[in-house]
Amino acid sequence: MAERVRIVEVGPRDGLQNEPQNVSTETKLEFISLLADAGLKTIEATAFVSPKWVPQMADHADIMRELKRREGVSYPVLVPNLRGFEAAVAAGATEVAVFAAASETFSQRNINCSIAESLERFSPVFDAALVAQVRVRGYVSCALGCPYEGAVDPARVADVATRLFDAGCYEISLGDTIGAGTPNQTKAMIAAVAQRVPVRNLAGHFHDTYGQALANVYAAIECGVRVFDASVSGLGGCPYAPGAAGNVATEDLVYMLNGMEVETGVNLDRLIAAGAFICEKLGRQTQSKVARARHKAC
Amino acid sequence: MAERVRIVEVGPRDGLQNEPQNVSTETKLEFISLLADAGLKTIEATAFVSPKWVPQMADHADIMRELKRREGVSYPVLVPNLRGFEAAVAAGATEVAVFAAASETFSQRNINCSIAESLERFSPVFDAALVAQVRVRGYVSCALGCPYEGAVDPARVADVATRLFDAGCYEISLGDTIGAGTPNQTKAMIAAVAQRVPVRNLAGHFHDTYGQALANVYAAIECGVRVFDASVSGLGGCPYAPGAAGNVATEDLVYMLNGMEVETGVNLDRLIAAGAFICEKLGRQTQSKVARARHKAC
Repeated sequence: MAERVRIVEVGPRDGLQNEPQNVSTETKLEFISLLADAGLKTIEATAFVSPKWVPQMADHADIMRELKRREGVSYPVLVPNLRGFEAAVAAGATEVAVFAAASETFSQRNINCSIAESLERFSPVFDAALVAQVRVRGYVSCALGCPYEGAVDPARVADVATRLFDAGCYEISLGDTIGAGTPNQTKAMIAAVAQRVPVRNLAGHFHDTYGQALANVYAAIECGVRVFDASVSGLGGCPYAPGAAGNVATEDLVYMLNGMEVETGVNLDRLIAAGAFICEKLGRQTQSKVARARHKAC
Repeated sequence: MAERVRIVEVGPRDGLQNEPQNVSTETKLEFISLLADAGLKTIEATAFVSPKWVPQMADHADIMRELKRREGVSYPVLVPNLRGFEAAVAAGATEVAVFAAASETFSQRNINCSIAESLERFSPVFDAALVAQVRVRGYVSCALGCPYEGAVDPARVADVATRLFDAGCYEISLGDTIGAGTPNQTKAMIAAVAQRVPVRNLAGHFHDTYGQALANVYAAIECGVRVFDASVSGLGGCPYAPGAAGNVATEDLVYMLNGMEVETGVNLDRLIAAGAFICEKLGRQTQSKVARARHKAC
């Protein structure tokens, strides 16, 4: 099976962006530092989106300027358009992430434009990224279901993924945004996308709304996917709001991969410490079962 | 893949036996009735063990006497020895479950005898069951790890499973008692057992201590296992005590199987209602992510 899996830690962005409680820039910087201490090599650090829409990410420029960069660690940031891209690069970003939905209704309600329009909006970002030698990662949301449309055709996911890949993304993260998918659906979706984008360029991004995330990761590994997004402590969303639950907890993912003798380069104890740090700052309980079990074992 | 999976609901026994809070006999009977309403066809109802050791199951005879049996539903009860078997049958049990560990240390510490001695102790139970035409199900605990010994050799699990099967158990439930296993380990263990006991006579029993239970179920399905134990709301153990977390939540299991178009005969809404009922009586939060998401979606 897999010998090595790369984990993209999205806690500081996808996680904190969806937490009701805001935390200070200083706390975020320490959090990112602890995640790097744990051995994570890709840490999504913030989003260059309007503070009007996402106040939790208003300090994006400060984060990128004050970040103590580690050798070998990448700190991608989410950008919604060229303006966001330029601000990100000005603040020191060397990798960005763009996003499109596989559901037309979700695209309209979430970012106020059609899927085609959202892809056009990113066209100048790809041009500018090429010049600036900035790597671009792509997200496809609603890859296993849409809160408005229900089931999403895998061919639609493959279309959007292919367009992002052809436009210049080095990796496409396939997101089960609402956490509705199950393992067989995951396999069917990945198989459809992998016919058009090489599987080595695909990543899995599973939210745990219905407790399916880790089973879906396992199914995706069986399909050849070797990159997974995760957020420490399962940060993100309110744990009690449907459709907004956090990502698969990084701790639980690392535990599974350790048990499968798959190398991640992540130290589980340090990872648990990073999760404990941010949960304390947020005043919330961890959603990681591994963190809970290990905590009480002490 | 699978077309049909049978779920053995163990909430009223493995679940309630390990909850710190006791509930009344009347509540247990209503709980069991709600589980049958949800379409479950095998509901482990209680344990004929000494009230000195397991006070939560002290009302075992009342449960079995007062139970309103449904056509087509089986209500197995756990029995530790011939005396327990006789009391169970006297109270109306038509199916029992016996148990052995795959770890010598766990057997000694849990039931004060060696694995071999525990199997000998069940010998008169098998004889009596044959005469009484009572079906016997067998549990093998520590199938994916022992709290004292750590890793458990799959060959050892296969030995104990084979002895229980040869002695007369119609089904062997392979239990990851401490929830330590991961999917590859699950597959290796089942492959070892399936060389000696037909896979159609095996069941999977996964606790969710480290969040791995559903991924392990999926791996077991891929190995051909078609019967799984689960407890509604993830009842059992204190959710914060390592080595004592509950079973995989029946709701989350049914959600996964529904998504995979595997028939279970269980109505998810009614199942969630049964879980809400018992959680309210216990004064605890559900451990089922599906139940949480559905509750807030209402």
